[in-house]
Order: sequence, then C-alpha cells, then structure tokens
Amino acid sequence: MAQLLPAALLRAIDELGRLPGVGARTAERYAYFLLRSDTHTVNKLASTLANLHSGVKTCPITFALIDADDDVSSLYSDSTRDKKLIAVVEEPLDIIALERTGQYNGTYHVLGGAISPIDGVGPEQLHIPELLKRLVDDDVEEIIIATNASVEGESTALFLQRHIQEQGITVKMSRLARGLPVGVDLEYADQITLTHALEGRRIL
Amino acid sequence: MAQLLPAALLRAIDELGRLPGVGARTAERYAYFLLRSDTHTVNKLASTLANLHSGVKTCPITFALIDADDDVSSLYSDSTRDKKLIAVVEEPLDIIALERTGQYNGTYHVLGGAISPIDGVGPEQLHIPELLKRLVDDDVEEIIIATNASVEGESTALFLQRHIQEQGITVKMSRLARGLPVGVDLEYADQITLTHALEGRRIL
Repeated sequence: MAQLLPAALLRAIDELGRLPGVGARTAERYAYFLLRSDTHTVNKLASTLANLHSGVKTCPITFALIDADDDVSSLYSDSTRDKKLIAVVEEPLDIIALERTGQYNGTYHVLGGAISPIDGVGPEQLHIPELLKRLVDDDVEEIIIATNASVEGESTALFLQRHIQEQGITVKMSRLARGLPVGVDLEYADQITLTHALEGRRIL
Repeated sequence: MAQLLPAALLRAIDELGRLPGVGARTAERYAYFLLRSDTHTVNKLASTLANLHSGVKTCPITFALIDADDDVSSLYSDSTRDKKLIAVVEEPLDIIALERTGQYNGTYHVLGGAISPIDGVGPEQLHIPELLKRLVDDDVEEIIIATNASVEGESTALFLQRHIQEQGITVKMSRLARGLPVGVDLEYADQITLTHALEGRRIL
C-alpha cells in the first residue's frame, strides 16, 4: 500500500500512539484533530509538553511531584499539616485522590510504585529507607498504608508492615478499609470485596 | 484546595484534555505517563506536533492530505488509478478506510465535511464546485458517494445527486451499499439497518 498520509501526520499518529491505552484509531483521531486545530493551539500543546520535565521535580522528603523551583512539597512544609501522620501511597497522583476527600490532614510519602516481581520491582526500588528516616526524624505516630487494593498493593503493605516492625520502630500502622464501594448492589459485588466487607463489618 | 500538582504538570493535563474524548482523568494519565517517560521521548512528541501543520497541506485537486512539498495527491497523480471513477468522501481519513479494502482503484474527492445545518455547515462550505470541475475536466464516468451512513452523510449524498443532475452533468452515481455488517446477528441489528438489508437484498 502506498503512503496514504503525509509523513508529518504519520509521525504525529505514531508518537501519539505511545500514550497509554491509545491505539492506532485513537491516535489517528487525535492527530487529525490537532491538524484541524489552529497552529497556536498545537504549538501551545507542543511547548507545554517540551517544558514538562524541566518544570517538575520530586520532593526530596515526600517524593510528591513539585514545581522545579520549590524545595519541598507544600503538603509537607505547610505548618497546619500533621507531620506525625503519614499516608503512604504508590504514586504521586494518589495524593490528589486522598486530598479530594478533604478528610485528611496528615502528610504523604510516595513509594514510587509497588512491589511486583513480575515487573522486576523489588522493595529496594521503592522509597522505603526515606520513609523509615521520616518515622524517626518526625517522631511519627501513625502511618496509613494507602497502597492500591491490588495484589501488588497488598504485598507492598504487608512488606512495609513487617519491615518496619523488624527495624524495631514503634508506630501505629493502618490500612485503608476495604468493603463495598458507594452505590454498588450486593449482588454485583465480587466475592473478595464481600469477604472484606464482612470481615470489616461495623457494630451499630 | 491548595495546588497539589506542579504548574507544568497542570498545564500539560490542561492541554492534553483538549484532545477529543479525553477527560480530566485520561489527561492526568497521559501527562503522568509523559512525565515518567524520558525527556527524549517527550521532546520527540512535542517537536512532531510542532511540525505537524507545516508538514501537511491539502491537495488542490482531491483535497486529500499530502506532504507540504508535494503538488498533488499521489492517489491522483498515479497513472494506474482510474481518473474516470471518483469516490466522494467526507474527511481525508475516510480515504485510508477505503484504501485498506484493496478493492478500489479510482481516485478520491474529499468534501471536507457533510451538510449539517445544526453545525452551520452548508453545501457552500464543501468542496463541491471543485468536484463539478473534475467531473468535466477528467470526463468522469462514475462517482461513488461514500459519505457516512449518518443523517448528515445521507443529506449530503442526496444534495450532491440533485445538484449534479441540475447542472446537467451526465455521470453514473452510486452510493455505498447498506446492510448487515460482517459478524452481526440478525437479532442485534437495528431496524433501519435491517430495512436497508431487506431493500438491498441480492438474488442468489
């Protein structure tokens, strides 16, 4: 088949197709949309992406994402946040999910992933030593292990719990509750979720 | 809520959210993916997008998309293609869909949309005069009106048919067949599709 599309468009489709979950058809749609947008819009997207890496860095204490010209995460430096309470999350975006609840006033610690032998991620790749240091430095009273409710998230939670105990550090450890999500009918809930909901039932 | 993400990342999420069908969560996922990719990958995407407009232009005869340094579409200039047969499509990407069948050896004409009063698109915005000129210049024998099977596509097909007749141009006009798509069970086919399938039934 001859080349049906201009090379510049094919390159754009190719590059956009690298985004997660974007197949050939979606990449075509994105590229064609951009081609039909005015040059200003496309150039703004291009320059924003080109400046993405240089504008963002990782907080050296919490490993949250911060502005390149900030020193530490504002969620840590903020004096109204309780430094004796740490929510341990897998990824930086998990912080946003927890902040959106408006119910949490502690600080965060981003592990940078979860233990996953199949992906070659072991505990040594995660920001665990830095967490142990914070537990001591900030005299932390409780950590909420807020890793995902996946096999990897569970393994990581279990590892963290044992590892911290082995280090002889005394700290209250908790895990986010598991149970029925809001709006889900019993009959549609999976077995494991229901088992968790039974185990974690609350006396009225 | 304080600013939870670096400004550069927020801008990237904002810009990526302009892509068609991309909501806030998807834009976050794309932006975070790019942030974790190496700088080279992101810069390549950025420069590809920045060069998109300058690398692409529209063929002055068929209105297909072509390389900025080409004169006319290779699907038109190619001497093995039958210039007396034109498939009229709405958008440039429709050409790819037809070419993928490997069953078509004519040329194309891109209307640049379909008649849609609700979107303010009338016949005067489409490349219809240029089509009429081709019908005469190339002594065209048949045009296949390959607009979408939507209300707008149907209206456009009907308008084209009448308009060409009114101009006194004699040319065979056909429309892509409508009926059951491959792999669809009768019981799941909608009424209109089934009606078309009945009307267009073929004697065995």
